[in-house]
Amino acid sequence: MQIQSSKISDHNQRHKTQHNADLSYIYDRIEKKGLDPEEILQKVGDFQVAIPSWALGTGGTRFGRFPSGGEPRNLEEKIEDVGLLHALNRSSGAISLHIPWDIPKDYIAVSNLAKSLGLKFDAVNSNTFQDQLNQGLSYKFGSLCHTDASIRKQAVDHNKEVIDHGIKIGSKSITVWLSDGSNFPGQQNFRKALSHTLDSLREIYDHLPDDWQMFVEYKPFEPNFYSTVIPDWGTSFLLSSKLGLKAYSLVDLGHHLPNTNIEQIVATLMGEHKLGGFHFNDSKFADDDLTVGAIKPYQLFLIFNELIYGMEGENEGDPPIAWMIDASHNVKDPLEDLLQSVEAIKLSYAQALLVDRDKLEETRENNDVVAAQEILQDAYRTDVRALLTEARIRNAAAYDPVGLFRTLKLRERLMKERGSKTIATGL
Amino acid sequence: MQIQSSKISDHNQRHKTQHNADLSYIYDRIEKKGLDPEEILQKVGDFQVAIPSWALGTGGTRFGRFPSGGEPRNLEEKIEDVGLLHALNRSSGAISLHIPWDIPKDYIAVSNLAKSLGLKFDAVNSNTFQDQLNQGLSYKFGSLCHTDASIRKQAVDHNKEVIDHGIKIGSKSITVWLSDGSNFPGQQNFRKALSHTLDSLREIYDHLPDDWQMFVEYKPFEPNFYSTVIPDWGTSFLLSSKLGLKAYSLVDLGHHLPNTNIEQIVATLMGEHKLGGFHFNDSKFADDDLTVGAIKPYQLFLIFNELIYGMEGENEGDPPIAWMIDASHNVKDPLEDLLQSVEAIKLSYAQALLVDRDKLEETRENNDVVAAQEILQDAYRTDVRALLTEARIRNAAAYDPVGLFRTLKLRERLMKERGSKTIATGL
Amino acid sequence: MQIQSSKISDHNQRHKTQHNADLSYIYDRIEKKGLDPEEILQKVGDFQVAIPSWALGTGGTRFGRFPSGGEPRNLEEKIEDVGLLHALNRSSGAISLHIPWDIPKDYIAVSNLAKSLGLKFDAVNSNTFQDQLNQGLSYKFGSLCHTDASIRKQAVDHNKEVIDHGIKIGSKSITVWLSDGSNFPGQQNFRKALSHTLDSLREIYDHLPDDWQMFVEYKPFEPNFYSTVIPDWGTSFLLSSKLGLKAYSLVDLGHHLPNTNIEQIVATLMGEHKLGGFHFNDSKFADDDLTVGAIKPYQLFLIFNELIYGMEGENEGDPPIAWMIDASHNVKDPLEDLLQSVEAIKLSYAQALLVDRDKLEETRENNDVVAAQEILQDAYRTDVRALLTEARIRNAAAYDPVGLFRTLKLRERLMKERGSKTIATGL
Amino acid sequence: MQIQSSKISDHNQRHKTQHNADLSYIYDRIEKKGLDPEEILQKVGDFQVAIPSWALGTGGTRFGRFPSGGEPRNLEEKIEDVGLLHALNRSSGAISLHIPWDIPKDYIAVSNLAKSLGLKFDAVNSNTFQDQLNQGLSYKFGSLCHTDASIRKQAVDHNKEVIDHGIKIGSKSITVWLSDGSNFPGQQNFRKALSHTLDSLREIYDHLPDDWQMFVEYKPFEPNFYSTVIPDWGTSFLLSSKLGLKAYSLVDLGHHLPNTNIEQIVATLMGEHKLGGFHFNDSKFADDDLTVGAIKPYQLFLIFNELIYGMEGENEGDPPIAWMIDASHNVKDPLEDLLQSVEAIKLSYAQALLVDRDKLEETRENNDVVAAQEILQDAYRTDVRALLTEARIRNAAAYDPVGLFRTLKLRERLMKERGSKTIATGL
Repeated sequence: MQIQSSKISDHNQRHKTQHNADLSYIYDRIEKKGLDPEEILQKVGDFQVAIPSWALGTGGTRFGRFPSGGEPRNLEEKIEDVGLLHALNRSSGAISLHIPWDIPKDYIAVSNLAKSLGLKFDAVNSNTFQDQLNQGLSYKFGSLCHTDASIRKQAVDHNKEVIDHGIKIGSKSITVWLSDGSNFPGQQNFRKALSHTLDSLREIYDHLPDDWQMFVEYKPFEPNFYSTVIPDWGTSFLLSSKLGLKAYSLVDLGHHLPNTNIEQIVATLMGEHKLGGFHFNDSKFADDDLTVGAIKPYQLFLIFNELIYGMEGENEGDPPIAWMIDASHNVKDPLEDLLQSVEAIKLSYAQALLVDRDKLEETRENNDVVAAQEILQDAYRTDVRALLTEARIRNAAAYDPVGLFRTLKLRERLMKERGSKTIATGL
Repeated sequence: MQIQSSKISDHNQRHKTQHNADLSYIYDRIEKKGLDPEEILQKVGDFQVAIPSWALGTGGTRFGRFPSGGEPRNLEEKIEDVGLLHALNRSSGAISLHIPWDIPKDYIAVSNLAKSLGLKFDAVNSNTFQDQLNQGLSYKFGSLCHTDASIRKQAVDHNKEVIDHGIKIGSKSITVWLSDGSNFPGQQNFRKALSHTLDSLREIYDHLPDDWQMFVEYKPFEPNFYSTVIPDWGTSFLLSSKLGLKAYSLVDLGHHLPNTNIEQIVATLMGEHKLGGFHFNDSKFADDDLTVGAIKPYQLFLIFNELIYGMEGENEGDPPIAWMIDASHNVKDPLEDLLQSVEAIKLSYAQALLVDRDKLEETRENNDVVAAQEILQDAYRTDVRALLTEARIRNAAAYDPVGLFRTLKLRERLMKERGSKTIATGL
Repeated sequence: MQIQSSKISDHNQRHKTQHNADLSYIYDRIEKKGLDPEEILQKVGDFQVAIPSWALGTGGTRFGRFPSGGEPRNLEEKIEDVGLLHALNRSSGAISLHIPWDIPKDYIAVSNLAKSLGLKFDAVNSNTFQDQLNQGLSYKFGSLCHTDASIRKQAVDHNKEVIDHGIKIGSKSITVWLSDGSNFPGQQNFRKALSHTLDSLREIYDHLPDDWQMFVEYKPFEPNFYSTVIPDWGTSFLLSSKLGLKAYSLVDLGHHLPNTNIEQIVATLMGEHKLGGFHFNDSKFADDDLTVGAIKPYQLFLIFNELIYGMEGENEGDPPIAWMIDASHNVKDPLEDLLQSVEAIKLSYAQALLVDRDKLEETRENNDVVAAQEILQDAYRTDVRALLTEARIRNAAAYDPVGLFRTLKLRERLMKERGSKTIATGL
Repeated sequence: MQIQSSKISDHNQRHKTQHNADLSYIYDRIEKKGLDPEEILQKVGDFQVAIPSWALGTGGTRFGRFPSGGEPRNLEEKIEDVGLLHALNRSSGAISLHIPWDIPKDYIAVSNLAKSLGLKFDAVNSNTFQDQLNQGLSYKFGSLCHTDASIRKQAVDHNKEVIDHGIKIGSKSITVWLSDGSNFPGQQNFRKALSHTLDSLREIYDHLPDDWQMFVEYKPFEPNFYSTVIPDWGTSFLLSSKLGLKAYSLVDLGHHLPNTNIEQIVATLMGEHKLGGFHFNDSKFADDDLTVGAIKPYQLFLIFNELIYGMEGENEGDPPIAWMIDASHNVKDPLEDLLQSVEAIKLSYAQALLVDRDKLEETRENNDVVAAQEILQDAYRTDVRALLTEARIRNAAAYDPVGLFRTLKLRERLMKERGSKTIATGL
């Protein structure tokens, strides 16, 4: 299913007057700050966030899952869903595949489909946290860290295969997230588990093409509830440092202990040139996987403040960071939720672009704490929505993506097409 | 499947010499403290912990489940499993049913089976956190709190049915745990949701027989990740106070925010005569549902210290507290795990019975903090395992329940009997 | 020291053009939402936040204190400082005294001084968390909860005296914050401590004039690190319910365990008509006492969303809530920090006033989670600063309070007047 | 003040019969486990924990301090206090000095005094978290990280002086704990602050004698409440790795976010041969600095389980870890508290020595989670107090250190000697 471009332009036309007023006001404000609105607009418009293939269906918890309908039944339909999002916002121009859920049957057809929708293939993801049907050995007690060498080998081989699939589809990176860990004190030898993991990662790393990157994700708990092998940025950094120049750490916003200062971790990893990937979501308690910006929007702004500081400064020469949404949609329509998430990400990015960096550094040098806060909050409190809208309109996307999604009854049409009982692969 | 009693007595016989030495030593120590070991032994032997029917199979997380084999395929086999536990430790003499997973087909047969194994029926549990096949309306957005009166009615009716089943089977209480809540700011009107919940609970309460109790459970998050309708003891207490004398709060150890002082909550609820039920488990991060005593055994001891203070004091006339294990067994054999949990509970109970209460109150009155700590730690540091063993032996249970479970190859026998691919109902 | 009103009007004149453009834009937006900007402006302008007398000096931690200069040396100078704030923002029209730090020597003079600056006297605060010079008995082991009746009596008498001082100065409420608790398991008998506290509070309550209120504050830890006698809203509610109609709970934003949903507590307390007072600050880890809105501005908005729901609904007849800032200024100029705090509070209030309540309730009734979030975020993302500015200008306060504070070199003048080594009473 | 050795031997004589019975029982149990009780006894007896000079007085919080009496008035009296502890337990044979609080006036006299009491000088500690009287520049906005090079230099010079004092007194290491950080988003440039800190540490490192070590401590918050420059083990490890072979990380048990798995951090740092120092205390909420073992004794055991695994394995060749207590004594007699802490540390050590390591590794290799837990808990549940007592008695220390401290009325004697209003330097 695709959206006719005339539907979008009609929609945009209807909001033109209001939008022009809003845009003119924000342009004026930005210019008064001595910044160039066109430059900011360009950056905001260019910013693309990958959508993971598993986020297109209804998510669940251990207590159950309440599926809605019209979920994609196969890889092609997942790509089409991301195509819908991208048509609406021109900001979701990439899809991140998950193996074995998304093994293409026909690589060329799949590539062409993506290309026709303006989509690239972002990092591929391996899965050693579940047992697949007909899988030889079980990951119940771990994968890359397992005490049994044959299970480690099976997991390494799986990751190599994931890279091979990625090569064929045009990806340039692999994200390794491990659920490996332990539920009880005593269960695991921490040092051996970490050492096995490093050895396994080395084998996978050796399989990487020269122009690829490997992202090592960390997470403090769940689905293991006493320890995980890569619990924090420190361990991820230790591993990616030992692996080599193509290995990077990946930050998932939900993978931290309560009260962690994530923006500082971002700064430190960038300072070491080891920040490679980013998984966006939001959370109040644990890895809640909620819509980005739904709980702590100011934290997201502060993180972008660090990201921009690096990307427009000492990290300019680093490979671009891989941006992805990693959320679960238990009570919202997955596509609407993803539109909200992308909007929240780009709002934070735009706000952070408004920070007057020279003045900020000056207040910091003088330890003028009040003024430093004023500078950040002045940017954060600015209503930059019209900027995002303008970027969308210029790219032929919609004035109001969620609104148009509803007006066009896209979910109803998907349900009609795919049925109301479909369940997409995912969690 | 049942265990021949001669197997147990042979096993006990083999450890007799060692046990007698251990017992004699601990008797001596207890007497030197001016306490009566026989009295403590009696209490420890009498203490029974209910086993929930859903804890007999392998648990899982949203990321997957790794079933082991030999899981019970129906209610009768669940009762048999609890019977096995009880035969091994004579401390698990009750089973807690979960409706609709455990609706008896033949009440009399089921009752007789339980009776033959020395088991009682503890609190019955309702389930409005999942949609059942053929269920009319969905609980996706709540049950007793729902904005839609017809869904509230469906949930109320379900709870009434659960009570009716409970009456037929001989239970005397119902536990209401609600997953009701919201995932996003704005989603729910907090005040209306709480008010609806109170109204719904009132209807259920009115359906309670005179000699029944209702337990209102609280939990801060999961499966909802922004708010739950009954997030904390305060809300549970508010509800149970408004409901009436037959309503009580239920404390589940895993249902608290980080760093909560649970023992103080226990004391406060007992002070208000509103502590009705207790769900044992252990956790490091969230509602991890780990084996009792696996992470914070000292906290468990401190909780028992409060429980005993009440039960042997001002709460003597209150109805007995309903004790139950509520854990998930993702990487352990469920029966072995339950044996470990029961042991940990009774160890804490026994240690807390060793506290010299008069001396403790004296040090408190004098604010002699050092001495108060010494009294608690003296009890906690005492190795009371021989007391538990003696209580088991006197009740014809096993010297070493986990050891005997393994020696008799009970899991292997269950797998042979039931198959290695069975999956019990539960989470 | 006072600010000449011409200084303020000159300052405002300089920003007139910019302000008018901003105001006109926000008026337009608000009207398009179908709301009345004048009505919102009125409410924002009327909203007053009390300043506690102890917040006017540099705060510290157990590791040290780095005083700046020009701190008020006595009650009169504290009142003058609040007068300065109020002249700049016309939103800080009340001061909250702390006894014994702020016992007036001449009630009439002090009253007149306050009146001349447009200030009222908010809740008075007692102090039983420290020992004062020449105090008979020590609060080392508690005050209202103490095991020793004579210490409880001393603490009760102190609170009665605080009320008496408050009566003379024109306050109408007393805030009771207790540090009472314990540092070690075993130290305190939880139930006796709570019972003593209730008895003590009853004596104080009986001393309240008819038109007074008592606010019972809660806090989970610090300065006690194992338990506090009133750790959570549930315990505060329990006490205030037992005390009577003049007793209310008080919420301090920093007094919660990690991840607590504070807005829900606010809703529940308002639902029970027991929310009496509010202490604003912000925090990342514990009771950090940072500038309001500096860490979690969206949470503050969500809290105001609940407050307004009640105040403009079922709580309309309740006594007005007592608003106060309770922060510590370790690295900022205390007056600048307070200006930032007041601004952040009123921004959140104004944003929450923009929420379309009817639409919100409609989406809630329909469980349209996406739309509910859009409604809240639409309000939150609106830049309402010009509204606050307009309210200030109409009230003869400053366009930019912090900016004018600096332009007029008020701190330098205070240092000249009072010296650079003065240390105000406080923490 | 010193304790006559006859007082101790009389005391021990009185408990001889009971002790012999207890000892004989535990010996028997240990032998049945196939371990050598004499070997364990030797290790337990040899284990020494340093006492910091600032822990000998009453601690406080930002809300106040309730001093008891008889606190040491100078360095000599602090050394005498540690001498008292060591006489009572022969396990506190070292003192850790804090500069500038403890600058010796006469190095030789002080050395001789320590030697006469059997004490060594452990790591010296610098202080750049407070401003001292007559200090040139302020640390209000940081020290080693400061934006101002002259303040960094002052802080570096101070640390060099601390090393110089340490050399004269016979220390072999310096602990650097920094309070450097920020209270507000925007205040600090994270990357510059970390970079300045590294540069400053390098200068201090270059001043280290060849046989010295430097310990880099980390802490997530307090006294800064938004960020600290060295918040976690990852940052500490990053710094100590860059500094060189003489730099190590130091773990303070209270310096972690909620729910952190500290034992895993210990294992990882030992795996990298970068664990240098250890600060013992206990906590429930934050850096509560409570008596060791008072809140989470099982966690302490699990940490020792990792420590022993390393120390008796691959870390055998590493320099010995520097053990120190770092607690605050707000409501207990500091000396009694320290005796309780040392006892708790050595209990955990002794219990962890009882772990059957070969069997544990075997269960781990087989992923027999139940058995692994049984092995740890079997050790933990063993009552090893008689072993500690025997070690003390053999070393001419007291059967019951706290008991004897009270019987001999040591505090009363100290108060008589030093006065009841003395306040020792410290927090």
